[in-house]
Amino acid sequence: MREVAVIGIGQSEFGKFPERSAASLGAEAVRATIRDCGIAPKAIEVAYCARAYDANCTGQGILKEVGVRNIEIINVENACAGGATAFRGVWKEIADGRYDVGIAIGVESMTTSPIAGKLIPPEKTDLEGHLGLTMPGMFAMVACRQMEQGATVEDFAQVSVKNHHNGCLNPQAQYKKEFTVEQVLASKMICDPITLLMCCPNTDGAAATILCSMDVARKFTNHPIRVLSSALCSADYKYTQEDICASPVGVKVAKMAYEMAGVDPKDIDLVEMHDAFANEEILRYEDLMLCKPGEGIELLRSGATAIGGRIPVNPSGGLLSLGHPLSASGVRTVCEVVMHLRGQAGKRQTPNAKVGLAQMLGGLVTNLEHGAVAGIHILAR
Amino acid sequence: MREVAVIGIGQSEFGKFPERSAASLGAEAVRATIRDCGIAPKAIEVAYCARAYDANCTGQGILKEVGVRNIEIINVENACAGGATAFRGVWKEIADGRYDVGIAIGVESMTTSPIAGKLIPPEKTDLEGHLGLTMPGMFAMVACRQMEQGATVEDFAQVSVKNHHNGCLNPQAQYKKEFTVEQVLASKMICDPITLLMCCPNTDGAAATILCSMDVARKFTNHPIRVLSSALCSADYKYTQEDICASPVGVKVAKMAYEMAGVDPKDIDLVEMHDAFANEEILRYEDLMLCKPGEGIELLRSGATAIGGRIPVNPSGGLLSLGHPLSASGVRTVCEVVMHLRGQAGKRQTPNAKVGLAQMLGGLVTNLEHGAVAGIHILAR
Repeated sequence: MREVAVIGIGQSEFGKFPERSAASLGAEAVRATIRDCGIAPKAIEVAYCARAYDANCTGQGILKEVGVRNIEIINVENACAGGATAFRGVWKEIADGRYDVGIAIGVESMTTSPIAGKLIPPEKTDLEGHLGLTMPGMFAMVACRQMEQGATVEDFAQVSVKNHHNGCLNPQAQYKKEFTVEQVLASKMICDPITLLMCCPNTDGAAATILCSMDVARKFTNHPIRVLSSALCSADYKYTQEDICASPVGVKVAKMAYEMAGVDPKDIDLVEMHDAFANEEILRYEDLMLCKPGEGIELLRSGATAIGGRIPVNPSGGLLSLGHPLSASGVRTVCEVVMHLRGQAGKRQTPNAKVGLAQMLGGLVTNLEHGAVAGIHILAR
Repeated sequence: MREVAVIGIGQSEFGKFPERSAASLGAEAVRATIRDCGIAPKAIEVAYCARAYDANCTGQGILKEVGVRNIEIINVENACAGGATAFRGVWKEIADGRYDVGIAIGVESMTTSPIAGKLIPPEKTDLEGHLGLTMPGMFAMVACRQMEQGATVEDFAQVSVKNHHNGCLNPQAQYKKEFTVEQVLASKMICDPITLLMCCPNTDGAAATILCSMDVARKFTNHPIRVLSSALCSADYKYTQEDICASPVGVKVAKMAYEMAGVDPKDIDLVEMHDAFANEEILRYEDLMLCKPGEGIELLRSGATAIGGRIPVNPSGGLLSLGHPLSASGVRTVCEVVMHLRGQAGKRQTPNAKVGLAQMLGGLVTNLEHGAVAGIHILAR
């Protein structure tokens, strides 16, 4: 298996753009990515494009706009982990020697989707979804359980305060505004104890990365960012799990990723992850073994996961402030990690970052009949 | 690169099933596939699942129903070529040695889709689509051009007569009814000269195949069906092409597939292909080099592509009579080829079939801004 490098990263603007097509957002991200590494578009040999809603040869539409033609294009979907799936797809093609250069694209136009609308709707057959067990409902149940185990609503609010603070340092964040714990708690109640400011917003946006073999990478840079590991797995979620707070597949994929990379959780300098709801981030600390089981709340309270802390989590602002264009997020998290490993993350830079982890979970709550998917990539300079 | 075999094939019923979910249709196909080869579900290590409309971790939903859990699942979309993309995805995983056993699934529930509805709608930004250049409109324009070059409406009708005859020999066909040329021409005019019986129907259905390394295959059968080649490519379609009848990407992918397989078009014993509209099949004869350029009409008229002819095309009944559940078709065509190579095709069996070709085109007409994709697999016993 060949070593694979990321040489180009790029994003579109993130926000609500009902007048823009997914292809236009995707093309903006791809153009930025091509500019970032200076590669000729015609050098791109394969593309994976993730989009969860209204996929209709979206990859072809995006690449046509930037003049990339006559290549193999695979459109993928894996709920919120679609972007991680696209990145892994390109990684495999290059690692296995099938192609030398590929692009991973993630894009979502939530505001223009007739399906996604304002709230991801439950499936026709999802009785519990129609009874209210949508994303916020499920995460509210999880939050109640977390509170049984010692968390407070102030802890959940603190995650939102932290990530909104981080977003203020990120020019690409959808929302750049500081909030206090009191303001988060006083915002509109969505599903007790989840308030509006504990929910990630609906967002339109795209992100892309160009991956290549190490041979190609060295033509473009003396400091390629290496992909140390790629891991992805699916699993049942709701009906088969004993603990509503646990993500067995998240833990499994984390172990796979660490083992493949040959690194320990304590070697990770920063993490970008799925914080669709503020309380979720605390659970993921434990899944990713950033702390011992049951110590996620203490890790948060210690300040270790803030910028400047021992292990910054979501320095980008996370889904909570940057926004969550579903399939884009799994590529965007990789872009953020790469920025830190390159030392290009500006005011939110993790000092001397050597190893970073990009995690994405999908299908966690709605679509309960279908199951969850977790994708993790560990990168290093 | 390792040699890959197909050891299991299976299909759901094809028809209009508004009361059935895509997961239910997919699970029916997967169960049939598992029964076909006798493999234990837990031996399946990776899955690719194609669905064009309303994909929402469909692969996870299907595999959960049959008890396949905790594996890597990639949901893909590539318009009508989605099934071919899924098959190729699994083929790559095994050829590249990443996994030993995988399943490719294609499924579409056209009747329950809020998007697909009765007619695939044009994109919001597709001005020409909204002016009438939908699938039937585009193929009608193509048909007019073909008639300028010597084809007659009777030729187009003859393709439908042939494929509906074949469908009568296939227990799984949606429509099992013989038609005469006169009946096809007298059916409702959809878009001159395309009549109703020259259009493939909207169909719900699923198909699946289990692929594995040759080592594994030999445990299950002394006669594995070998995948000689896999080729897939995307290209612009409408705006960049000089000849409305030509499919440059179809020709390109055919050349790739023949070269990789090391076979000549004259070595092919049967072909399953995209006959979304009756006149299309004639064009594809030329793309696939079953005859010389410009001689497609003569090939049809000679009877060579009928069952019992030199090179039977769509002995299954094709999309025209079997139905076209978009993403299922690219897997279903492989299943049909495998049946002939095994000698299990019953009354429609191609005598002594040694090499077969499964082709699928996608995004050919609607979604014009996005482009086309062609996927071809050549299989042999």
